[in-house]
Amino acid sequence: MGQDQSSVFDLAAVAAASNGGNNDPLLPPARFIGAPQKPSSMPYTKYVAYDKQVPFDYPERTWPGKRLTRAPRWCSVDLRDGNQALVNPMDSDRKLRFWNMLVEMGYKEIEVGFPSASETDYDFIRMLIERELIPDDVTIVVLTQAREHLIRKTYECLKGVRRAIVHFYNSVSVLQREVVFRKDKDAIKKLATDAAELCKELEGDAEGIDLYYEYSPESFTGTEPEYAVDVCNAVIDVIKPTPEHPMIINLPATVEMTTPNVFADEVEYVSNNLQDRDAIVLSLHPHNDEGMGVAAAELGILAGADRIEGCLLGNGERTGNVDLVTLGLNLLTQGIDPQIDLSDIPQIRRTVEYCNQIKISERHPYAGNFVFTAFSGSHQDAIKKGLEAREVAADMAGAELGNFVWLVPYLPIDPKDIGRSYEAIIRVNSQSGKGGMAYLLKANHNLDLPKKLQVEFERVVQQHADTTKKEVKDEDIWHLFKDEYLPVEEAGTTEAGAVVGDQQDASLEQWGRLKLLKVSLSSGEDGSDTTLNATVLDRGLNVGTDPEEVREISGTGNGPIDAFLDAVKVLGVDASVLDYAEHTMSVGTDARAASYVECEIALEDGETSVVWGVGIDSSIVTSSLKAIISAVNRSAR
Amino acid sequence: MGQDQSSVFDLAAVAAASNGGNNDPLLPPARFIGAPQKPSSMPYTKYVAYDKQVPFDYPERTWPGKRLTRAPRWCSVDLRDGNQALVNPMDSDRKLRFWNMLVEMGYKEIEVGFPSASETDYDFIRMLIERELIPDDVTIVVLTQAREHLIRKTYECLKGVRRAIVHFYNSVSVLQREVVFRKDKDAIKKLATDAAELCKELEGDAEGIDLYYEYSPESFTGTEPEYAVDVCNAVIDVIKPTPEHPMIINLPATVEMTTPNVFADEVEYVSNNLQDRDAIVLSLHPHNDEGMGVAAAELGILAGADRIEGCLLGNGERTGNVDLVTLGLNLLTQGIDPQIDLSDIPQIRRTVEYCNQIKISERHPYAGNFVFTAFSGSHQDAIKKGLEAREVAADMAGAELGNFVWLVPYLPIDPKDIGRSYEAIIRVNSQSGKGGMAYLLKANHNLDLPKKLQVEFERVVQQHADTTKKEVKDEDIWHLFKDEYLPVEEAGTTEAGAVVGDQQDASLEQWGRLKLLKVSLSSGEDGSDTTLNATVLDRGLNVGTDPEEVREISGTGNGPIDAFLDAVKVLGVDASVLDYAEHTMSVGTDARAASYVECEIALEDGETSVVWGVGIDSSIVTSSLKAIISAVNRSAR
Repeated sequence: MGQDQSSVFDLAAVAAASNGGNNDPLLPPARFIGAPQKPSSMPYTKYVAYDKQVPFDYPERTWPGKRLTRAPRWCSVDLRDGNQALVNPMDSDRKLRFWNMLVEMGYKEIEVGFPSASETDYDFIRMLIERELIPDDVTIVVLTQAREHLIRKTYECLKGVRRAIVHFYNSVSVLQREVVFRKDKDAIKKLATDAAELCKELEGDAEGIDLYYEYSPESFTGTEPEYAVDVCNAVIDVIKPTPEHPMIINLPATVEMTTPNVFADEVEYVSNNLQDRDAIVLSLHPHNDEGMGVAAAELGILAGADRIEGCLLGNGERTGNVDLVTLGLNLLTQGIDPQIDLSDIPQIRRTVEYCNQIKISERHPYAGNFVFTAFSGSHQDAIKKGLEAREVAADMAGAELGNFVWLVPYLPIDPKDIGRSYEAIIRVNSQSGKGGMAYLLKANHNLDLPKKLQVEFERVVQQHADTTKKEVKDEDIWHLFKDEYLPVEEAGTTEAGAVVGDQQDASLEQWGRLKLLKVSLSSGEDGSDTTLNATVLDRGLNVGTDPEEVREISGTGNGPIDAFLDAVKVLGVDASVLDYAEHTMSVGTDARAASYVECEIALEDGETSVVWGVGIDSSIVTSSLKAIISAVNRSAR
Repeated sequence: MGQDQSSVFDLAAVAAASNGGNNDPLLPPARFIGAPQKPSSMPYTKYVAYDKQVPFDYPERTWPGKRLTRAPRWCSVDLRDGNQALVNPMDSDRKLRFWNMLVEMGYKEIEVGFPSASETDYDFIRMLIERELIPDDVTIVVLTQAREHLIRKTYECLKGVRRAIVHFYNSVSVLQREVVFRKDKDAIKKLATDAAELCKELEGDAEGIDLYYEYSPESFTGTEPEYAVDVCNAVIDVIKPTPEHPMIINLPATVEMTTPNVFADEVEYVSNNLQDRDAIVLSLHPHNDEGMGVAAAELGILAGADRIEGCLLGNGERTGNVDLVTLGLNLLTQGIDPQIDLSDIPQIRRTVEYCNQIKISERHPYAGNFVFTAFSGSHQDAIKKGLEAREVAADMAGAELGNFVWLVPYLPIDPKDIGRSYEAIIRVNSQSGKGGMAYLLKANHNLDLPKKLQVEFERVVQQHADTTKKEVKDEDIWHLFKDEYLPVEEAGTTEAGAVVGDQQDASLEQWGRLKLLKVSLSSGEDGSDTTLNATVLDRGLNVGTDPEEVREISGTGNGPIDAFLDAVKVLGVDASVLDYAEHTMSVGTDARAASYVECEIALEDGETSVVWGVGIDSSIVTSSLKAIISAVNRSAR
């Protein structure tokens, strides 16, 4: 294969020097419980620790004490790096759709292709130029390897463009110098400066174009930072940027090779050692091989980077480029304007998935289906309380809720700010407990259950969840609730209002001993003189077999509830109210009230039972009497 | 809603103090090209920067200069945190399958559920204990809130277990203290110490169990680190761990709220300020809300953490827990034994996806479908060269290739080490260039094309890719290659050997002027006296319309190629060879050779054409003559 002997020997030398990595497999972690972990059969000795591949230390670092304070310059490389990594690269319709979205979102630099390597890219860029699809304030970037015929073709492609960035690169890493290019440091540097010189030379052919340059020491993460600076400075020497006409130096984490603190050290070192730093836009191009691309970008910004290249939702070679959506929304959570419109994440996701023909994960930050979903009961409870507290606080501050400070447990961002709804936040499964169930009843049915009633009903839901082993959907909860607390006539009609909105439910059976048919009340100056007359249908203790009987009953008390409890004594019902709550479910002429009563009811065997009852009615009186009947009927069941 | 006034005011105060966050929206990045980015309409002022929520600085930090050196203690929480976040939590079959895999992989601590909150969890844990499914060297962890009735039920569930860790938690964050619990710091601390005291008290009922404790100051990331330490130390005071019988202090990044350098600072601070540190296993439980969970875990280890809780492939509430697979394989790339068997990632992925009923992304580190796929031509070229260089180096070192040092551009890990194949590494689309095509022809067809021939054939592939706009699959490349270089008789039979292995391809048409029917050679002591006699079928310049003719031709030269070129002159073919290469395609009795010739051929109009030809035959003579015929025929096309 015509292998150059020297590179072979160097590779073998690296192997010999590095064998065994950093590892002492016999040393378990200092502290453990039970038994130590065992050495695995994974062939770890064949891997070379990053600091043995690229020894570097930078104790002068200042980035760890810094914080993000504003948005970097963004560059989308979706149409280039993202596109090249697709099984089926985008056709021009898809590319145009993606382009339009990027422009609308506010990206001002967009890498549009590698025109010298792909006819499709070339044609697309020509179309953008010829059809004048590039707004004044957007600059296109075109990529080319630092090779003469490719650079020439790149310039050819740019004819007629208003402004452009020519992005040339060559790989400078130890490994690629050894095994791919088989050239020494000077020769590799010369590839870069030759390309820079050719670019300058071709400027004559590019008249009328406001031309800028971007240079990438490709595979920067596998390169000695000192050498990368040396190459970049040589390129800067040729290009001669000024603060008024800067150039971009872009550091690609072509392959993510270690923890992002090391990358940040390297970035800070480069930032401090580039010449004409005030004429340089220092850019990063992180990939995500070790799953830390987002962190590498953010720590890199702390370390001095001005600009980030990435893709929406993290498309790109292998594990993808850093995700620009996550970076932008991470800034938002810190009170920083991302300077990009990320207000409709579902639409962004649809377009990205359509164009790339790749689905993102359910757990993708901000955009995944489950990101705003809490199944855990304690999470649900905390979210519910947090949302309520925020509403109250906004109200007291007289602030518009949508823009009021967002501090809600477990939800780092307001779903509404990115075009998502609260709907999916609370989902109930067998692991949930009462919080989620209570939230759903409130959000979807306007029922605000008292805490003790939540505890009682939780058992019903939990039993259902443990039996079915499935997610308990909102409709299941509503079905369970109706079945447990509401008489079938009420549950099965739309009596509870449009909020409830379900139809006659055939699966609910007639139940319960008592039914209120009619009620009249009279009282004097205060409630203590209340007299109540009611007509009730009594189906007997054994509903369905006992004869039905319509009874006129009456009682007195210090209010309707007390009077009703007095009245039902004649039916053999001995009940007292332990707790009571009521709230309106809606306002206006068709307003309804929900009443909740906790009753202690004497049973035949001399024991008592404590149960809750629920009543819904347009009359607050009727709803409370219905609630008592609900409790009595449940007790009899 | 019975809102406590004080908490409302505090929330409003936070809002007032923080309004505007850290942001100055009018200040663009210092340097940009073209136009500045514009302020967006995103409501950034409603978000409170992390350092305003939890002011903390730790200039004493030492972690940024540290490197990973060994595996932490791992704890899988797939069966608890992972499970609770599923639309349909696992049934006991799925749970058992997951459990078995975790045990086989080498996890020694496995959190198995929240038995006091879920009957399903309770029953599963009882099954593990009663059916004696817990190996001696594995310790189960059971989670409970720090509340009396839940703790009691937890102990009930543990009866008969050999060893267990009771993991109790309460939320200690500023926000949850304010809006969920509405308790002050002392009262929240007392929840934790009361729980610890109850645990100690219940030890009497737990005789025979080797009992350990884990305490989590839940929502640690929203908590003042000083207060978190205060609560943890109070719990440690009650539990009284010793180096011989340690306890776990677990810091949950319940919600990931900022960059991982801040988290690492907090971890280092806690690690340095916990009392009885030598009796404490300091554990982290990172989530991934900002997409930096992996980085938080790794920087946290640098900062002093001993133990990591997470899920395989990153399942868990919302965006998931930190991914234990990525963490383990990141260690491997640094030459560190993860102490977990990650050698069959496809199988791990299948089991995880089956149990969780959630698919991972195509770009998931290490496990995604596209992770070892390179579409870019320059990447493909570098990978090919890197793999070749490694083979040569291993050979020269006399080392077994599988265990030889892995340094290959763009591939941070050897796919074979995690049960994946090289198959998918190189895929060709319109963005690819020649590297990938050359790799596929070599890997799948044993054809090692000379560089200049690669350039020639690349145009054919590129044209095809630009036309179809689709990925060019291996079979497409082989079809294009046969169609371009090989006579149909050869391409259509299995003459090229089992490596080629395709059947008669009806879509290939008969083509080409000349066909070699027979050849005989004689030469003296050296090749310079070579005489060649050949029988060729000449179909004429217009194949299909010209009459076919069998011709006997002969020539002399300094070898068979030279003699053949002499012989074909009689047919009006004036060709000379510019470059020549040949290699065996296989060894043994059915060995075949592939020959490549670059010919300059005179055309009728006085011009010349330079084309490559390819021949495959068991005879190196015949293969080279066929290669010349291939070139001649192509030139005539």
